[in-house]
Amino acid sequence: MARIAGKPVTERRLNAGGLSRPVDPNGSLVTGQCYVQFARLAAPRFAAPAVFWHGGAMTGAVWEATPDGRPGWQSDFLRFGFDTYVCDAPGRGRAGWSPFPDIFGDAPLFRTLEEAWSLFRFGPAEGWHEDRARLRPFAGQRFPLAALETFAAQLVPRWTGHEDLMLEAQAAALERIGPAWLIAHSQGGYLALMLAARCPDLVRGVIAIEPAAAPGEIGGAATVPHLVVWGDHFAASPLWRRYRAAVEGHLDALEAAGGAVARLDLPAIGIAGNSHAPMLDDNAAAVAALVRDWIAALDPGIAPRAPDGG
Amino acid sequence: MARIAGKPVTERRLNAGGLSRPVDPNGSLVTGQCYVQFARLAAPRFAAPAVFWHGGAMTGAVWEATPDGRPGWQSDFLRFGFDTYVCDAPGRGRAGWSPFPDIFGDAPLFRTLEEAWSLFRFGPAEGWHEDRARLRPFAGQRFPLAALETFAAQLVPRWTGHEDLMLEAQAAALERIGPAWLIAHSQGGYLALMLAARCPDLVRGVIAIEPAAAPGEIGGAATVPHLVVWGDHFAASPLWRRYRAAVEGHLDALEAAGGAVARLDLPAIGIAGNSHAPMLDDNAAAVAALVRDWIAALDPGIAPRAPDGG
Repeated sequence: MARIAGKPVTERRLNAGGLSRPVDPNGSLVTGQCYVQFARLAAPRFAAPAVFWHGGAMTGAVWEATPDGRPGWQSDFLRFGFDTYVCDAPGRGRAGWSPFPDIFGDAPLFRTLEEAWSLFRFGPAEGWHEDRARLRPFAGQRFPLAALETFAAQLVPRWTGHEDLMLEAQAAALERIGPAWLIAHSQGGYLALMLAARCPDLVRGVIAIEPAAAPGEIGGAATVPHLVVWGDHFAASPLWRRYRAAVEGHLDALEAAGGAVARLDLPAIGIAGNSHAPMLDDNAAAVAALVRDWIAALDPGIAPRAPDGG
Repeated sequence: MARIAGKPVTERRLNAGGLSRPVDPNGSLVTGQCYVQFARLAAPRFAAPAVFWHGGAMTGAVWEATPDGRPGWQSDFLRFGFDTYVCDAPGRGRAGWSPFPDIFGDAPLFRTLEEAWSLFRFGPAEGWHEDRARLRPFAGQRFPLAALETFAAQLVPRWTGHEDLMLEAQAAALERIGPAWLIAHSQGGYLALMLAARCPDLVRGVIAIEPAAAPGEIGGAATVPHLVVWGDHFAASPLWRRYRAAVEGHLDALEAAGGAVARLDLPAIGIAGNSHAPMLDDNAAAVAALVRDWIAALDPGIAPRAPDGG
């Protein structure tokens, strides 16, 4: 609980048609909380649940549906037989955020559609800034670009330097949920790698989808199985080649320490065209099934599979 | 789509363990969007869905569960046989927000725990500001105050003067959802009254839970059935007596124009002790059933009731 003090009381009209009243900004504000929404099955097939962490400028909405309206990975993993928990990190989505500079320090960053175009490897970055009409996707791009504005509508402000705040909130959530398969995207993938190092007992396994950074520490992570998923078009992104090299260095160190690391390099197994967000691409359900298969090899489940193998 | 231009590019490290890169804040940002999460039944009993709008410093999380962990009204209305749609208004929760002053103008307001104590009529406001230990609830208070900090953790920043932005987004959502029973709290109740006046064809009926203001216009609202729900302890809140008087004036004008208006004044029918948020109080399920009964009298449903009448 944080405190705000010493600020003036002002007379404000909170609703245009309403009556004015004094608004006192001073007092207590909860800060650092995350939001978790769960959907649990009557009869899950897997003992540990799937916990979903979004990426840097996103919320849990990214796991609910694809921008073009297909069911998201939350639905896929429920269908596979996992209880699911979808998180909004501190400062984003339903977790809310705290005043800056008073509590949250710096101002947040906003992700423009043009920055997303480049960072999500939808297409060449050249010229995007001057003229959106010049944006051309990579050949074979699997992201549903017809729904690009719906995707951009889901981007939210994000703070930097909040890693410890986010890790504390996520660890507190996992202490209540129990050890889980962390399915985590981009910045969330970085945090999942970090949590496996710091709190391995809370993590049944890490599934990092295009993690954006490496934790820089091994800690207890070698006892936690890791799967890292990479999309396509790294050749066109010097920035992502640097990010990926840092993550691969961490994975190499994990293996050297005896850790079990699986790399799902989609183009290397003949699946071309994925963006930075394979869980939103046109083959999202197929990629989900590959992740499910990796989990199932480690945890065959607590109940018989349905005949369809789903 | 809004544009940011003319700001400097800075070199930033987005993740503590990551690599720095140039961050360009200039470009396109979607603004004014709302977020809607739906849960639909295989066989709904009611033709029109229930659409939930949160109050001023809140998100759709308020309808999911009570702070002390009971199922929320979303679950109750699914059980009653409604398809449900839970909204986060523009600027809040998963809808995200836009930079201020560039796009969103003014800075938002933050609701302190102490302001919530007073505004939600949990107890006398005297002395709350100096010492939280002095907070004492009203006798018979039904709000689950043991979970007060969980409630406070769900409060989010809110902007003022965004009524038209919110109404446009909500109207756009209803155009896709179809005419609905709007179950709306506090500021959301005010917006629902406004939407009934401006877009009556989108509104099957308004259920305003403690609306915080009156729209100041009748428009087409007399063709829309209205239910307004009031809790207890108005005698102790001069502010809420003023708010309520303004709303009652609107309801009187609606009736004078031939509108159908029902007032569910809980203490007047012997249900004492409710706060400003009856959907979170210890009798939340009973209040939900009263709302369901009002709807069912107007729309007997599209399928037979289950034997338990639920």
